[in-house]
Amino acid sequence: MAVNRTVLRAGLLAEGAKVVREKMIPYQWDALNDRVPGAEPSHAIENLRIAAGEKSGKYRGMVFQDSDVAKWLEAVAYRLASHPDAEWEEKADSVIDLVARAQQPDGYLNSYYTIVEPGQRWTNLAENHELYCAGHFIEAAVAYYEATGKDKLLNVVCKLADHIDSVFGPEPGKKKGYPGHEEIELALLRLYRVARDKRYLNLARYFVEERGQKPHYFEIEAKQRGEDVFLHWGKWASQYSQSHVSLRKQATAEGHSVRAMYLFIAAADLALETGDEELLKVCETLWDNTANHRMYVTGGIGSQEYGEGFTVDYDLPSDTAYAETCAAIGLFLWGWRMLKINPDRKYTDVMERALYNGIISGMSLEGDRFFYVNPLEVSPELSKVRRDHRHVASTRQDWFGCACCPPNLARLLASINRYIYSYSEGGLYVHLFADSKVEFVVGQTEVELSQETDYPWDERVRITFTMERDCNFGVHVRIPGWCSNPEIQVNGNVVEASTPSNGYVILKRKWRHGDQLQLKLPMPVEMVYAHPKVRETIGCVALQRGPVVYCLEEVDNGSNLPALSLGGNPKFRIETDPDLHVPVIMTKGYRLQESGDELYTTQVPRTIATEIKAVPYYSWDNREPGEMLVWIRRRER
Amino acid sequence: MAVNRTVLRAGLLAEGAKVVREKMIPYQWDALNDRVPGAEPSHAIENLRIAAGEKSGKYRGMVFQDSDVAKWLEAVAYRLASHPDAEWEEKADSVIDLVARAQQPDGYLNSYYTIVEPGQRWTNLAENHELYCAGHFIEAAVAYYEATGKDKLLNVVCKLADHIDSVFGPEPGKKKGYPGHEEIELALLRLYRVARDKRYLNLARYFVEERGQKPHYFEIEAKQRGEDVFLHWGKWASQYSQSHVSLRKQATAEGHSVRAMYLFIAAADLALETGDEELLKVCETLWDNTANHRMYVTGGIGSQEYGEGFTVDYDLPSDTAYAETCAAIGLFLWGWRMLKINPDRKYTDVMERALYNGIISGMSLEGDRFFYVNPLEVSPELSKVRRDHRHVASTRQDWFGCACCPPNLARLLASINRYIYSYSEGGLYVHLFADSKVEFVVGQTEVELSQETDYPWDERVRITFTMERDCNFGVHVRIPGWCSNPEIQVNGNVVEASTPSNGYVILKRKWRHGDQLQLKLPMPVEMVYAHPKVRETIGCVALQRGPVVYCLEEVDNGSNLPALSLGGNPKFRIETDPDLHVPVIMTKGYRLQESGDELYTTQVPRTIATEIKAVPYYSWDNREPGEMLVWIRRRER
Repeated sequence: MAVNRTVLRAGLLAEGAKVVREKMIPYQWDALNDRVPGAEPSHAIENLRIAAGEKSGKYRGMVFQDSDVAKWLEAVAYRLASHPDAEWEEKADSVIDLVARAQQPDGYLNSYYTIVEPGQRWTNLAENHELYCAGHFIEAAVAYYEATGKDKLLNVVCKLADHIDSVFGPEPGKKKGYPGHEEIELALLRLYRVARDKRYLNLARYFVEERGQKPHYFEIEAKQRGEDVFLHWGKWASQYSQSHVSLRKQATAEGHSVRAMYLFIAAADLALETGDEELLKVCETLWDNTANHRMYVTGGIGSQEYGEGFTVDYDLPSDTAYAETCAAIGLFLWGWRMLKINPDRKYTDVMERALYNGIISGMSLEGDRFFYVNPLEVSPELSKVRRDHRHVASTRQDWFGCACCPPNLARLLASINRYIYSYSEGGLYVHLFADSKVEFVVGQTEVELSQETDYPWDERVRITFTMERDCNFGVHVRIPGWCSNPEIQVNGNVVEASTPSNGYVILKRKWRHGDQLQLKLPMPVEMVYAHPKVRETIGCVALQRGPVVYCLEEVDNGSNLPALSLGGNPKFRIETDPDLHVPVIMTKGYRLQESGDELYTTQVPRTIATEIKAVPYYSWDNREPGEMLVWIRRRER
Repeated sequence: MAVNRTVLRAGLLAEGAKVVREKMIPYQWDALNDRVPGAEPSHAIENLRIAAGEKSGKYRGMVFQDSDVAKWLEAVAYRLASHPDAEWEEKADSVIDLVARAQQPDGYLNSYYTIVEPGQRWTNLAENHELYCAGHFIEAAVAYYEATGKDKLLNVVCKLADHIDSVFGPEPGKKKGYPGHEEIELALLRLYRVARDKRYLNLARYFVEERGQKPHYFEIEAKQRGEDVFLHWGKWASQYSQSHVSLRKQATAEGHSVRAMYLFIAAADLALETGDEELLKVCETLWDNTANHRMYVTGGIGSQEYGEGFTVDYDLPSDTAYAETCAAIGLFLWGWRMLKINPDRKYTDVMERALYNGIISGMSLEGDRFFYVNPLEVSPELSKVRRDHRHVASTRQDWFGCACCPPNLARLLASINRYIYSYSEGGLYVHLFADSKVEFVVGQTEVELSQETDYPWDERVRITFTMERDCNFGVHVRIPGWCSNPEIQVNGNVVEASTPSNGYVILKRKWRHGDQLQLKLPMPVEMVYAHPKVRETIGCVALQRGPVVYCLEEVDNGSNLPALSLGGNPKFRIETDPDLHVPVIMTKGYRLQESGDELYTTQVPRTIATEIKAVPYYSWDNREPGEMLVWIRRRER
């Protein structure tokens, strides 16, 4: 059982959602309609008009350009759910009408194939994203239906899903294919929950289970196209799309990191819906591999540009990191699915790490510029000249030719209120901390919970219950893994509760109207070390306060940031930056001195004491472009 | 005035020359004749046979496959000069006969164009290496003539040079081209010194001066071929071949590092021959840029695979380094030219650094396996999976499709005796230290100098003079820049001589038969720091003893080498490795301990004391494949 509507009132997440409402959704609306001056035209709306036969012209953009429209629609749906608005609903309705008109009589929906290769539907699943785009339309439709009760798009995607079900599946005569880029699987599971049609569950299961079977479908379809190989990814051709082996035999996160996340989300949802213990175990193994061996301290995943993907355990280079915004979002969404099955902070901690760091770093504070790649070390000079840094933008961009990340950010932040609480038979779960309120029902009693906090900047959280009558239920409060000295009070009395192994303290009692639950989650500045097998960061620390990872910027600390180091026992001071309006970390450290022109010398380099300022990682590149560094050298004691 | 024959007797360089004689020349002979099992066939000799019309078949290999034959011939020439041998002279003569037969009636010589595109000579200078191959044939011819007195190949290349002179030059009706890969310029200058035909000097000068003029010749010829652009190197298209601007306006080493070296060698030789002070100044500026801003501690140059070239000042990544063997050889040869103009150890020190480290690392101790790329940090696991490490072979290879490096190594090491001494009006110069003897003439007096030493392993050098009568001359002994406490004795008496700014101590006196000059060049293990602007190596040291840079190998130190560090004041002990038979460095250091599975932790990682063993960098990968690391973390004090 879910909670009822959660209202986000204030704080960093609310600001993020507000930026999405006020800036990103309008900006992306302009982008989709090719009205952003200087940015690459998206052509996405135009493509749908052409596919609907209402305009003539050429298809332009990526083969998955439709998905940008779908993700925007999904973001608008969440926005309307929390902040109803006639103007945006009208715009969304007009887009939905257009999508409906672009749908073909048999249910097929994809503007690329409809315009460019109408006879070649479903002939290149490996590369051409038809099922991926369908999945995003389905997600948008479910969200829009839930937000507005309007079912026009839902009917469109049911017809689309029915069409897909008539083409793919284990039954004789159907194609044995599955998508190169996962998304349809998780979308069908969302559709199943709304439409309750078992065919959607079965089709999702089919897509998950068929992936990686031999003979390899992508080779079969490539031969049918008269091509020898199905992709240009060389020896990682099938790893790239997680189709190297059946999912049930996968123990490490491989290939394109966004694709991997979307598959794992679907697998977790499938395990939840079917109670498949083996599949759940696979998900847990993959989670452990991803979170404990292949994740940046920012929650970013994907260590290299090549294949936008994973490499090997502990290979986490800072400067050539890929850490795509979409991949961190995928990790967050996967964590949520795992959490629903098994409430454990090992999932929530990672979700929070990604959210406050590698996800929201993907956009500027104003919501109008975006990072696709989120490295942990940037030198603008090297980004220009080093070919292996060419994917590393040293400042956020207006828009992208492959514009997957900005609308993905928009839909996540517009729906971020949904991830704060959950309710199940065991009681209410408080997963994230944010100034918000939520309603839920215990038995026959309606309860409203109000959470007051300035988290992640302030350690204090005050939860107040409002209800008509006393009510017995449990409140499961997550104690974040980063917090070593939490304090819990109920109505001013300290509660002596040791944190259970899943990290959720259970406060089970007869709650009364006006009861207060107070948390103190002390957030001193911590120096975080990576596992010694992470070659790149040996001898270095990342500064973290609460869930927020900090970084150094050139604008505060001068150039050549690697020349800075922390002492053996640094003292940290928190100040508020006048431009960023957030807590920043001040400390004393050292800077290597240049003492001559010699390239190599036996003279021990001198250092001088210097003030060091660190700002939240996500907030970098919001003042002046320049160098950035997360991992700071620290003198060993 | 040069010295007479220098005989290398023993020691590391003599061993290198011996490996070339006994292993590399025979091995490469087999390779050129496609007789190395398992290695990519070279087809180089076969191409010449086809070009000579003696066989039918297809041209195979790189467009510059001829140059492998030429470099091999040059190596054989040096080998015959020091160690005459009828069998190898006969083989070389047979190859020379074949080359002569492959030459076209008008003097043109290039098996690729002769076989594949006979009508398209000189239409793609930017990419197709005709002038480059010509240059290598010229170098081989000069060397072979000097070694054997035989002029058959010399006549072939004079005819070839005459033909080139008829095609290229500033005169009306001639092509205004120049090579994409420099080499012809320095070769023509060598030919000029033997043939004393001013046309060769003028043609070399023309090629050097025309490069980089506007309109750009490579664009002109591309248009003539009906192509838009002349190379695929994007925005660095002309930097790649140092043709972005006139050489006289270049102040930084840009583009493909081997090409840059060959151009700079020619420029220095041209300055020497013509007394062109402005050109000399350009060479000095470029030397300063290369040696003081863009060179690895191993003497390697070229920081990235892309374009096999330079990037920007202080960008010297260890693990993705290119540092091609040929480029280090080019740097050595350029230094020699600079040294001839202006005897200064700033050149010799770099030559020595390259020679004992980044050059001889290019081959195995047995002379049968080769590195093309010489990184300063290798992880075999990452070489396999990281695309930006794909150029980094983690173990030496049998041969290469582009086999420029092994024969380049062979010709350098076979002629290494020529770089130890020089003689000019100022007296005799002792540039390098190696067990050797040399003859030279002062006025009418023949002097023989015998140098006894086990350098670079031992600090002692004893030089003994043999002559018929007393003779007044100066001996200029280089005190290596790495040596801070040299001691000089003449006949057992300490000479109080401060080292002049050029690093060559002058011992000018009436030398008598049997006089002994003794040097002590103390070589404690030094910890070398890079300039603080080298981001990659901050907090680390390289171990160096004498001119030899050391590294850590997995076979000695276990895996995850970056987890090792040196203490604040490490003591070093020298031992002799039983397998490598060279001095290795032993010291106590620390190893980061793994204390759990957590990827990120606030627990300060524990270290344990451990023994660390470092071996000469050039000798790595001669026992077991595995990790290697030059720059070692050092605890700061």
